[in-house]
Amino acid sequence: MTSPKFDFENVIRPGLPAPGGRWSGFPPFNFVGGHNAPESIPTSDLIAAMTRVLEREGATLATYNLESGAQGYRPLREFVAAKLGRDAGMKCTADDVLMVSGSLQGLDLINQVLLAPGDTVLIEAATYGGCLTRYQRLGVTAVGIGLDEHGMKMDELAATLKSLADEGNKPKYIYTIPTVQNPTASILPLERRQELLRLAAEYDVPVVEDECYSDLIWSGERPPAMHALDESGRVIFVGSFSKSIAPALRVGFVVAPWAFMSQMLPLKTDAGSGALEQMVLAEYCREHFESHVAALNKTLKQKCDALVEAVEANFGTAAEFERPPGGIFLWVKLPAEVDTSRLAKEAAKHGIEINPGAEWSIEGPDAKRALRICYANPPIETIRKGVAALAEVCREEFGVPKTVANR
Amino acid sequence: MTSPKFDFENVIRPGLPAPGGRWSGFPPFNFVGGHNAPESIPTSDLIAAMTRVLEREGATLATYNLESGAQGYRPLREFVAAKLGRDAGMKCTADDVLMVSGSLQGLDLINQVLLAPGDTVLIEAATYGGCLTRYQRLGVTAVGIGLDEHGMKMDELAATLKSLADEGNKPKYIYTIPTVQNPTASILPLERRQELLRLAAEYDVPVVEDECYSDLIWSGERPPAMHALDESGRVIFVGSFSKSIAPALRVGFVVAPWAFMSQMLPLKTDAGSGALEQMVLAEYCREHFESHVAALNKTLKQKCDALVEAVEANFGTAAEFERPPGGIFLWVKLPAEVDTSRLAKEAAKHGIEINPGAEWSIEGPDAKRALRICYANPPIETIRKGVAALAEVCREEFGVPKTVANR
Repeated sequence: MTSPKFDFENVIRPGLPAPGGRWSGFPPFNFVGGHNAPESIPTSDLIAAMTRVLEREGATLATYNLESGAQGYRPLREFVAAKLGRDAGMKCTADDVLMVSGSLQGLDLINQVLLAPGDTVLIEAATYGGCLTRYQRLGVTAVGIGLDEHGMKMDELAATLKSLADEGNKPKYIYTIPTVQNPTASILPLERRQELLRLAAEYDVPVVEDECYSDLIWSGERPPAMHALDESGRVIFVGSFSKSIAPALRVGFVVAPWAFMSQMLPLKTDAGSGALEQMVLAEYCREHFESHVAALNKTLKQKCDALVEAVEANFGTAAEFERPPGGIFLWVKLPAEVDTSRLAKEAAKHGIEINPGAEWSIEGPDAKRALRICYANPPIETIRKGVAALAEVCREEFGVPKTVANR
Repeated sequence: MTSPKFDFENVIRPGLPAPGGRWSGFPPFNFVGGHNAPESIPTSDLIAAMTRVLEREGATLATYNLESGAQGYRPLREFVAAKLGRDAGMKCTADDVLMVSGSLQGLDLINQVLLAPGDTVLIEAATYGGCLTRYQRLGVTAVGIGLDEHGMKMDELAATLKSLADEGNKPKYIYTIPTVQNPTASILPLERRQELLRLAAEYDVPVVEDECYSDLIWSGERPPAMHALDESGRVIFVGSFSKSIAPALRVGFVVAPWAFMSQMLPLKTDAGSGALEQMVLAEYCREHFESHVAALNKTLKQKCDALVEAVEANFGTAAEFERPPGGIFLWVKLPAEVDTSRLAKEAAKHGIEINPGAEWSIEGPDAKRALRICYANPPIETIRKGVAALAEVCREEFGVPKTVANR
């Protein structure tokens, strides 16, 4: 005899997102998600770093936040501050850094401090899909600013700020991924960074600068962060080790002035981010970060080149894209008759996963025909086969590309 | 020349909690926080486990959630399910387990699924302070049920459920820490667990069972979890490795039926909990969990005994308490003339930190005179000195205890 089952449907809070599904494994051709190259995980150096740091400081695992307080493991904050000084021209110290459980927790904290339902934020018209879902859930209006091959268009930003100001609507912040923009992979030039800051000052708006990908540039050269160019303290900077070391390590960081930092701390209700991951990163990165990232970029560039070649070979002139200067994804636009949301659905039946443009951009004429292909994780041979298979699905569904490629 | 500083005061969301302060280190006599015994951290076994698991599976760090999906690292979920079957009589599999970044993230997810402003929950009248702050922030009314030396009083629970039902108020859940209750350290006997479930069924209310401390029992014996006794699927179970292995590892778990689990998944917006910590725990615990916890309990009991002895020696009959059967804290009541919030403030000036009862209980006659002393972290000699110093401060402020102890 069993008692009647309790029905949670009657007690869950109204308005929750749709329930999640059961995990059923990765598809054979996995072109979604910010995964990295498995062959580039520095396993033995991570083991060596972990062994050293635990032998030295293992007993501190007995205390929440080790002995560093709520901002996170101090040696890692020191590494982050030094790295950002060296690579991005930023002037900050360990006291300005909050370690978070991945940069997504950072974005959640920033949103919790700033956003209330009804607020407006400005974003790049094509941007990280997770941000779009966040704004939707928060009841926040995200206004998209158009992009070209150099990133956010400053004339559009100026016009949008002006028209919002005319309506008495002051956006809560400008959110940007300036360096290796997600999904377009563009790098915002110095002049636009300065112009963005000038406009932010003119309209008295903060800037959230998300620099998750800025380590992944083939040339190794990047413009200074906007945080570095700004003197007013309006820029909140977000970064991550997910792309430079390993995504499964959930370690990111936020750099913010104390007036903002102190508001985030009580909202971080998780009693600290994972200590082992912070310890091993601090120990590993001090010695290996630069050489690791240089080697990783070589691997990623090879995969990127293979993807570009496969797209050209299989889609021909039907595929429009900019050759990425770095990163882990390619943003492709197909002819207007292709609906990439439907393409994604059909491709999934053939074991191919892609991000349709509609999930990665604000509504717009290009969203429907665009797609994002992540290339860091699969082996090169899988990239080639997957793109060929995707072209085949696309041809069957939309008659695009018109002819079978010569391969 | 510097540009004017941006003022975040004007843009932060109204109604945020008070800003946090700068970390200034632990006080000499640190009797707060769920820290553990540093001498019990199994450093070398953790290093060995980490080395093995990374040598075998290091490359999977390149994928979010390793290859286990959003519920977390499958081998650890398998360990948790087997452990809960063995220790708590629960019937669950890895599919019923969600790994979270510490049990506090679990509580946050549960609250997000169930609670809206204006809701009511039932809690133990003295309970984990972090829950009280959470309810306050969520605009949820927490109704306290009285405790005796065996935990939540069932007659009070019955009466409260009845009077709320009479008002047409159906609580969203009953929250309980049945095994080594925080802060009283009581263990709810089998009969009360059954009665609580009977009442929950009668009033059609879910139960949130928080079992963070249930591994820390000197005798090693614990009653079955309510999750094990329940057949209706109304119990959501929360557990943690913070107390059994190390608090700085942020790894907890929630066991829930799929109807509830699937609602939590999209709310866990952190792209997974830390992989290294989950991997090392799975590898370490399979072999060492039981022997480690047995040894840890010996250490904790010695510290507990030392604290009890010190409290008796320094406070004499002024201190009322139950001798804990396990855990990491002692709940002490002082005579009514003592205001422990003021005591905590004065003690802090002497480098002694304690939790005043008001932070750890719903308003009530005993809250003002109670305090929680955490004993797992300091060395025994520090416990002795700290309690003597605390008694001295208390005597100066409140004339209690009346005479200086013979020591």
